[in-house]
Amino acid sequence: MKPEGDIVSASHGKAARERTIPKRHGLLRLIRHHKKSVDLPAGTVAADQEASATSVRTVSYDAADLREHDGVAPPDLAGLRNSSDVLWIDVTGLRDTQTIEEIGAAFGIHKLTLEDIVNTHQRPKVETFDHYVFIVMKMLDHSDAGLTEQMSIIVGNDYLITFQERAGDCFDPTRARLKRVGGQLRSEGPDRLAHALIDAVIDNFFPLLEHYGEVIETLEDLVVSAPEPSHVQRLHSIKRDLLEIRRAVWPTRELVNALIRDEHQLFRDSTRIYLRDCYDHAIQLMDIVETYREIASGLLDVYLSSMSARMNEIMKVLTIIATIFIPLGFFAGVWGMNFDYMPELKRPWAYPAALGFMFVTACLLVVFFWRKGWLGERKPKALR
Amino acid sequence: MKPEGDIVSASHGKAARERTIPKRHGLLRLIRHHKKSVDLPAGTVAADQEASATSVRTVSYDAADLREHDGVAPPDLAGLRNSSDVLWIDVTGLRDTQTIEEIGAAFGIHKLTLEDIVNTHQRPKVETFDHYVFIVMKMLDHSDAGLTEQMSIIVGNDYLITFQERAGDCFDPTRARLKRVGGQLRSEGPDRLAHALIDAVIDNFFPLLEHYGEVIETLEDLVVSAPEPSHVQRLHSIKRDLLEIRRAVWPTRELVNALIRDEHQLFRDSTRIYLRDCYDHAIQLMDIVETYREIASGLLDVYLSSMSARMNEIMKVLTIIATIFIPLGFFAGVWGMNFDYMPELKRPWAYPAALGFMFVTACLLVVFFWRKGWLGERKPKALR
Amino acid sequence: MKPEGDIVSASHGKAARERTIPKRHGLLRLIRHHKKSVDLPAGTVAADQEASATSVRTVSYDAADLREHDGVAPPDLAGLRNSSDVLWIDVTGLRDTQTIEEIGAAFGIHKLTLEDIVNTHQRPKVETFDHYVFIVMKMLDHSDAGLTEQMSIIVGNDYLITFQERAGDCFDPTRARLKRVGGQLRSEGPDRLAHALIDAVIDNFFPLLEHYGEVIETLEDLVVSAPEPSHVQRLHSIKRDLLEIRRAVWPTRELVNALIRDEHQLFRDSTRIYLRDCYDHAIQLMDIVETYREIASGLLDVYLSSMSARMNEIMKVLTIIATIFIPLGFFAGVWGMNFDYMPELKRPWAYPAALGFMFVTACLLVVFFWRKGWLGERKPKALR
Amino acid sequence: MKPEGDIVSASHGKAARERTIPKRHGLLRLIRHHKKSVDLPAGTVAADQEASATSVRTVSYDAADLREHDGVAPPDLAGLRNSSDVLWIDVTGLRDTQTIEEIGAAFGIHKLTLEDIVNTHQRPKVETFDHYVFIVMKMLDHSDAGLTEQMSIIVGNDYLITFQERAGDCFDPTRARLKRVGGQLRSEGPDRLAHALIDAVIDNFFPLLEHYGEVIETLEDLVVSAPEPSHVQRLHSIKRDLLEIRRAVWPTRELVNALIRDEHQLFRDSTRIYLRDCYDHAIQLMDIVETYREIASGLLDVYLSSMSARMNEIMKVLTIIATIFIPLGFFAGVWGMNFDYMPELKRPWAYPAALGFMFVTACLLVVFFWRKGWLGERKPKALR
Amino acid sequence: MKPEGDIVSASHGKAARERTIPKRHGLLRLIRHHKKSVDLPAGTVAADQEASATSVRTVSYDAADLREHDGVAPPDLAGLRNSSDVLWIDVTGLRDTQTIEEIGAAFGIHKLTLEDIVNTHQRPKVETFDHYVFIVMKMLDHSDAGLTEQMSIIVGNDYLITFQERAGDCFDPTRARLKRVGGQLRSEGPDRLAHALIDAVIDNFFPLLEHYGEVIETLEDLVVSAPEPSHVQRLHSIKRDLLEIRRAVWPTRELVNALIRDEHQLFRDSTRIYLRDCYDHAIQLMDIVETYREIASGLLDVYLSSMSARMNEIMKVLTIIATIFIPLGFFAGVWGMNFDYMPELKRPWAYPAALGFMFVTACLLVVFFWRKGWLGERKPKALR
Repeated sequence: MKPEGDIVSASHGKAARERTIPKRHGLLRLIRHHKKSVDLPAGTVAADQEASATSVRTVSYDAADLREHDGVAPPDLAGLRNSSDVLWIDVTGLRDTQTIEEIGAAFGIHKLTLEDIVNTHQRPKVETFDHYVFIVMKMLDHSDAGLTEQMSIIVGNDYLITFQERAGDCFDPTRARLKRVGGQLRSEGPDRLAHALIDAVIDNFFPLLEHYGEVIETLEDLVVSAPEPSHVQRLHSIKRDLLEIRRAVWPTRELVNALIRDEHQLFRDSTRIYLRDCYDHAIQLMDIVETYREIASGLLDVYLSSMSARMNEIMKVLTIIATIFIPLGFFAGVWGMNFDYMPELKRPWAYPAALGFMFVTACLLVVFFWRKGWLGERKPKALR
Repeated sequence: MKPEGDIVSASHGKAARERTIPKRHGLLRLIRHHKKSVDLPAGTVAADQEASATSVRTVSYDAADLREHDGVAPPDLAGLRNSSDVLWIDVTGLRDTQTIEEIGAAFGIHKLTLEDIVNTHQRPKVETFDHYVFIVMKMLDHSDAGLTEQMSIIVGNDYLITFQERAGDCFDPTRARLKRVGGQLRSEGPDRLAHALIDAVIDNFFPLLEHYGEVIETLEDLVVSAPEPSHVQRLHSIKRDLLEIRRAVWPTRELVNALIRDEHQLFRDSTRIYLRDCYDHAIQLMDIVETYREIASGLLDVYLSSMSARMNEIMKVLTIIATIFIPLGFFAGVWGMNFDYMPELKRPWAYPAALGFMFVTACLLVVFFWRKGWLGERKPKALR
Repeated sequence: MKPEGDIVSASHGKAARERTIPKRHGLLRLIRHHKKSVDLPAGTVAADQEASATSVRTVSYDAADLREHDGVAPPDLAGLRNSSDVLWIDVTGLRDTQTIEEIGAAFGIHKLTLEDIVNTHQRPKVETFDHYVFIVMKMLDHSDAGLTEQMSIIVGNDYLITFQERAGDCFDPTRARLKRVGGQLRSEGPDRLAHALIDAVIDNFFPLLEHYGEVIETLEDLVVSAPEPSHVQRLHSIKRDLLEIRRAVWPTRELVNALIRDEHQLFRDSTRIYLRDCYDHAIQLMDIVETYREIASGLLDVYLSSMSARMNEIMKVLTIIATIFIPLGFFAGVWGMNFDYMPELKRPWAYPAALGFMFVTACLLVVFFWRKGWLGERKPKALR
Repeated sequence: MKPEGDIVSASHGKAARERTIPKRHGLLRLIRHHKKSVDLPAGTVAADQEASATSVRTVSYDAADLREHDGVAPPDLAGLRNSSDVLWIDVTGLRDTQTIEEIGAAFGIHKLTLEDIVNTHQRPKVETFDHYVFIVMKMLDHSDAGLTEQMSIIVGNDYLITFQERAGDCFDPTRARLKRVGGQLRSEGPDRLAHALIDAVIDNFFPLLEHYGEVIETLEDLVVSAPEPSHVQRLHSIKRDLLEIRRAVWPTRELVNALIRDEHQLFRDSTRIYLRDCYDHAIQLMDIVETYREIASGLLDVYLSSMSARMNEIMKVLTIIATIFIPLGFFAGVWGMNFDYMPELKRPWAYPAALGFMFVTACLLVVFFWRKGWLGERKPKALR
Repeated sequence: MKPEGDIVSASHGKAARERTIPKRHGLLRLIRHHKKSVDLPAGTVAADQEASATSVRTVSYDAADLREHDGVAPPDLAGLRNSSDVLWIDVTGLRDTQTIEEIGAAFGIHKLTLEDIVNTHQRPKVETFDHYVFIVMKMLDHSDAGLTEQMSIIVGNDYLITFQERAGDCFDPTRARLKRVGGQLRSEGPDRLAHALIDAVIDNFFPLLEHYGEVIETLEDLVVSAPEPSHVQRLHSIKRDLLEIRRAVWPTRELVNALIRDEHQLFRDSTRIYLRDCYDHAIQLMDIVETYREIASGLLDVYLSSMSARMNEIMKVLTIIATIFIPLGFFAGVWGMNFDYMPELKRPWAYPAALGFMFVTACLLVVFFWRKGWLGERKPKALR
């Protein structure tokens, strides 16, 4: 298979895309990790050996002040918690399970939650515990490792911890807004920050869908003007990606709905109004994904009809040529026979007569094909 | 791809259609705007740079009197509100976000509502606020910019504000009824006007569906008499449009249902009876859309069976001609060989005998094909 | 397209069908009327200009007596109402809106109800008003104008009004039973008469489905023995009709269910038991429609497999003939060349040897094809 | 169409099947009866003229004693009822409506119940009346008349009446168990007997499904090794039967569920536990039916891919032969021309050179085809 | 059909799979047993004659101590129960119904439960009885007998009994954890052990799905580079297995949900939190199964488009060769005729002129085909 990231896309080179489409998506990866953890008891925090190295960044802020720290040791995080209104701990890379367990211990996180954070093949979900809310999401992956990566959020009363699989995310605009003094986000609690991150994760799917929309529109033209099997492959790989996006977005919709409906005292009513917006976006994503899938399926029909029309055209050319010249060749063969007594061969007018006979035969056959409508495109009037 | 607005339609030239079918529908546009707003915080009113210029028309009326104003400045709108029973502010074009924000400020509209008005890719929905009801709908676009445009309605206790993306709408009959002295609409509140507008938006989809119905009927004939791939393309583009209409109408149904069921004191019971009518129409629209989609899918089967029947016919002609003349050509070739000792060539009766032999062979083959039913259309008795 | 009413059906000529299948069904008509009424305010009673002329028949009866009147003027209907226990007003043709409005005025019918009666493209539904129940149904059309026509029923405490689009209906057996002295219907109220009419409308779909069942069975044989594209067209048109019947019956089911469940004091419990029967029939209708649709879809697969088997057979004949005689023709051509030094041409045994060589070649090829299984139908043992 | 009962099945001749698969299933019959009863008022007990003759068998038993009677007259049934704990009246054949009405009168059965018993095209359902429960089921038909027949059960407090369409049923094991002294069934009420009969009806579908499973497995092999259109026909007819079984079993599931959930004092809690078992079996039946339908649909894809692979093979043979020998034939034709001045014809080495040239051309073409992979099956390594 | 266990898989030989994919899956077996038990009354414990021999292993443990026993006689099991905190009785093989009935008697198990244990074709379900909970699951079969085997669990207040169809299971890691002193499992009740087993059964499906994922990825490449019907067969058999896995997992999800929701005092709240994890895994399994099914269906489209592209290529080669050389052959035939008066044959320049004429004709045809785009792959620019 050709690299999926390159096909077709060059035709839209002018609109520089912000991210590269990965070449292989994580279908296999999705299961491989499971296999490894199959024999472990539930509640075991066991890292995938291919996981990225762990790094911890913290941001603590109130309306007036914002402090950033890199690489704070887990035991020191408790101290940061005390000295600030809102503490955001941003953990990237899940290889160092010890660090993650220490963070868990410092904030009283349940063992099953830690297991879900490290086992990166969760379905998006929200789980409520006594003093925190645990949210798992699928975020578009910004590295080349797959289509999506897992993003876990723990929301406490004065802190928020995020766990990402790999470096690179879609939160830079959120970080910029956080640094702006007087920004709304600065004077709100961790629930509002959680909303901002959820919003970013959901909205970040739209540019990818835009790209697929462009590819589908290009294919809609190509499939008619120059159909070839690679188009069907491309459609197949788009449908596969859409399936994965659906698997990421569909439970996200339920998740956001659960945050809106359920009574977590950690999420205030003012934040719920904003979550309603996220909910609308998630539904819109699903709408677009389903629409694209149906259009992609429809394109296959267009492709097949193009191909069968081409086949018909090829067969017509063959049939016309063969049907005209095979009988003529037979007549030439008859008069090329070596019988001694073939009286017509002696006549001086015989040769032109034979040629004329052949010409008339050919003309009759052309007329026959013309009446069958096999010569040229007989556009019916209604279509002109 | 040929311009979709022209294909097939000419065959119904006699029935002058009221609107032109747009050539490109907004699949891409739908997402592109999202991309732009992805990095903005929720609640930001940021206009699409391609949006139309903003213009404001106001109509204020009671049973006795009706006054129209063009281009009233937003701060003056509050004054109009006081001097009239019902005030309809009709905003067209969403480029000038400042005007929209000023209107919002004058009527106490929530920031998220204003964002939804300007971000023109909302899903149809209804949202209730303390002193107004916010309705988003998709309306058939009367310009060439797309298939649908967004129509937002804010219903207050003595005013109604509508926001349209582009100039041109389906409300002229409503405006005419409003101007008629003694009309029912004049003596009712803004909820009744909201119903009239919702009704117009829904009913306006029917003429487009009628057009698609005509095209599908034309294609039902063509696909049998003269199938070609452009028919499948046309069916594909109709199905794509039907998908978009479904995406516009399906949530509209829920929206109207929410207006009927929920307890908004702004919508009186007498208006709810009329909304039940809108609800029925929305369901009918969905019924027709689904029926058309199934018929269009069925037509593809008819198309493919037509094509394969044609292919069979082509192959039959080729096979009949080739099967008759290739063996005959071989016999002629045999007697055209130059061996010295071919005794039959010397006989005077040999030539006519050879011709006779060939003729009989040809006849036997014709009989063979006739018995196989490959010559002419052997209609089975049951079908005559 | 050939007239759909004739195809295939002749094979069942012995079983004289009771009704003719219409040639064109009302897909287009369904919308055309909407278009006309799009610009009218809700509640306007505007007739379709193609509607049939209006005629009014009345039957008033109690257990002892039954009186029929034709063409009673609407104002006189009130008088009839007083002089009888049950009054059935049967209105046929919806062109004369004034008559309909006068009837409405005489019985206190709501404006929206009258609009729904005249706008003949309602979805089947039941609506309850203070002193009457309004029922809309789709009835098989007995004229040639379409597949179904609209039937509206208004049930009051001592009267029942029916509105039909066109003359001809399925109520003659009901009328006959009504005339029989001592019949159960005579001693019951208008709710029981309404049940009898609803029952007739639903049961009347069964003969049409029976016809489709016969056509499908015929096609099941034909599609195997003599497949041709007209069969697919016929299946397509049956599926289209089944879609329309489903659109008529599905909401009817809900309608009957609503009559059974809801508390209309106009429908007594004894009648509800009978309506349960109607409900069962409606579900059975849906069952049959869905089954037929699935069978028709399956038949298309049988058709396509028949066609591709035929194509394979054609190609086999061509390939066998061409593959045997083209090489032989080449050998004859070689020995027909005019080189001076072709020593084998001089040998007396050369000609028979050449013929023998060709014969052996042909035989080898035949063996090759025989072993490939291309000659004759090699039935696998398991199928014998 | 070939008799469906015979195809394929012979390959499993060793496992003697217990029942013959009927040749024509009752699609048409299903509707035909409706047509006849369409014009009758609801509540009329009118027999189908093709119904079997009616015969009545009764079994009355308590734990100690069991008495069987044949042909008891309906008026005498009341007497039997008094003299026994449980009375099972088994009515076979529904032609004699008078007998059925007399039985109905003797046990106080509602008119609509009697109508449903005689009109043998009910959907399986349960209806509760004051002093009895009425159950309608579809049972596999043991005669050749159709796939299923209707089985109605009336359960009273001390009696149970069954109505079958035709002689032959699946209750012999139940009868045997009833005759065994000390059997559990003997000491229980009619609700337990009803359970035993319902259980028998449901379980009796499994052997038929087993047969279909065997046919499908056989077809899975045949469709690959020797595809032909009759396989698709066979799959089509199996899918049709599965549709009918689904129509019989799906409402049966609801029926059993209703018996478990609803509060009929006639069904004791101890019986409900056993009905839970029936419920599980009905769900399993549906599972198998759906699985078989999906497998049958998938087999069609295998068939089509087999056919198109065969077509490709045929075309390859034709193309290879034609492409090699048509050019060679042309060269032979060139040197067979009769021009006076063709100098190469005079050279002694010309003939062998010409043959050599042709041979080399043929070899090049063979190499061309070999590199295209058209000669032999180039198994990719991954598949070996 | 080739052995399904071998195809394709060799390409992933490096990753040694832990289990062999069975060659024939249990579709037929699934029904065959039913057939045998059809005539038995409900509640009869009748073994399948092909069932494996029964063996009983017991493990009794508390936090401090663990004892294993093999082949304890059923009557002695009661004694073990008294001497330990938790008793796990692991029964393998269901042939010896007497042993199973004795165990049932010793622990007061209901007759219907015993029947369900022995009849190995239950749908996964949970049933609550007074003093125990009965769970039926489908577990991947580790022998070659089928894809899944039945696993029944009875959970009492101080014991747990498991029944497996055949030797070999996925519980060895659980047994190892049980033997580890100080392990969490050792200090918990039988509900926690039940969770561990359920967890193992669910997680054990993932490696098989991983294998299918790998096969599907391999087929995605092969279907493009070297399509052949065996790929479709392989896809068909994968889809069949996925159907069976879905039938095993879907009700398992409901089962786990029932354990979480319902109030069994035997399952403590601490265990319910762990069951929530099982529930997530079951949903993920369903997600993967559905995704694979859709991808497999999509692959068929890719396959068909590959095949039709190949057919087109074959036809193009044939058409090009035939269309060029058949007319040339005709011209050669004309000049090979034996008419006495063919003046051009006498001219010295005639032969080269004829060859030149033929050459030009051939060139024109090549140009014709080149412009039709039939020579080489004319990649449209957009795709480069």
